[in-house]
Amino acid sequence: MQTLQVKTNRRTEFVDITNEIRAAITKSATKNGVCHLYVPHTTAAITINEHADPDVARDVEGIFDRLIPERGPYKHAEGNSDSHMKAILVGPTQTIFIVDGKLAMGRWQGIFFCEFDGPRDRKLYVKIIPDME
Amino acid sequence: MQTLQVKTNRRTEFVDITNEIRAAITKSATKNGVCHLYVPHTTAAITINEHADPDVARDVEGIFDRLIPERGPYKHAEGNSDSHMKAILVGPTQTIFIVDGKLAMGRWQGIFFCEFDGPRDRKLYVKIIPDME
Amino acid sequence: MQTLQVKTNRRTEFVDITNEIRAAITKSATKNGVCHLYVPHTTAAITINEHADPDVARDVEGIFDRLIPERGPYKHAEGNSDSHMKAILVGPTQTIFIVDGKLAMGRWQGIFFCEFDGPRDRKLYVKIIPDME
Repeated sequence: MQTLQVKTNRRTEFVDITNEIRAAITKSATKNGVCHLYVPHTTAAITINEHADPDVARDVEGIFDRLIPERGPYKHAEGNSDSHMKAILVGPTQTIFIVDGKLAMGRWQGIFFCEFDGPRDRKLYVKIIPDME
Repeated sequence: MQTLQVKTNRRTEFVDITNEIRAAITKSATKNGVCHLYVPHTTAAITINEHADPDVARDVEGIFDRLIPERGPYKHAEGNSDSHMKAILVGPTQTIFIVDGKLAMGRWQGIFFCEFDGPRDRKLYVKIIPDME
Repeated sequence: MQTLQVKTNRRTEFVDITNEIRAAITKSATKNGVCHLYVPHTTAAITINEHADPDVARDVEGIFDRLIPERGPYKHAEGNSDSHMKAILVGPTQTIFIVDGKLAMGRWQGIFFCEFDGPRDRKLYVKIIPDME
């Protein structure tokens, strides 16, 4: 298992980490297999979506913030229950295939670390499982 | 890795692909293992939910369209930021177990390809990993 | 594959099952590997989020119920289309890594079985895949 560091700069922020994951695949020298991603935080998540146009991530950040109000009738004393909800909606884990040493992603897809209570220093666990020969 | 073709007919549409995935399992001749599904698109997703009553999928399509408005204050020039948001909420990947050559799903469960910007010709990646003996 | 039993007590309820999953890992005697979780129901789901403060789960239950109204213009005769939508948003499957015989989770993370149409007797499938030596 590899652990990546991710630095976020805003409260809600989709950070493109596609190149970091690609580097992890290369480092593992895996030809074919599966790459599992796991976020060990409770106010952050991981997704795969368009990274060709950065406006998409900006729009999605805005939709999240309008959909789940920061100020609600919340009991949790830290005041970030909206961040937990957003993290649950996106989810803490994703699985991508590796084919011929490369991530088998769609043409427009990138991998985003989703920060919902930043800015913070975050971690991402990466586990690469090669196919049996 | 197998690649399946999925044709969608509406902008928002949950397409039942359970039989196609079952056929992929049979084709692989896997007795026990794991089946990972991956959507290589940024405005489509994959889920598992009730397929006994088709009204459930129709209701859920409606809830998505009311929850995430098609017309928002969006920057993305293509005008489909709502489609990207919906795809992120459902997610691009799912994992199902294979037991005795069959999908270990619940009685009412089916697998749905979730179109959020159709109609389009779509793909789904299927990777079946047999257990080690 | 192991099957766990989960009893829920409210219509919407996040049940902390972290200890049950830890026991399943111990039972499997797996040192390093991956643990896949799968919910074989269509109105329940599985997530990983904060369990240090139980108020977080209570707040999130409330956000779900305000976000997806129980009474909508739904066709499904059972009247629980909101439960299906909530289950789809959280998702039926998660993947966690096993390192040195323990779940590689974050400090504040716990595993929650998410009930959206309880109270009911539910099941959870657990599949543990050890790394190849």
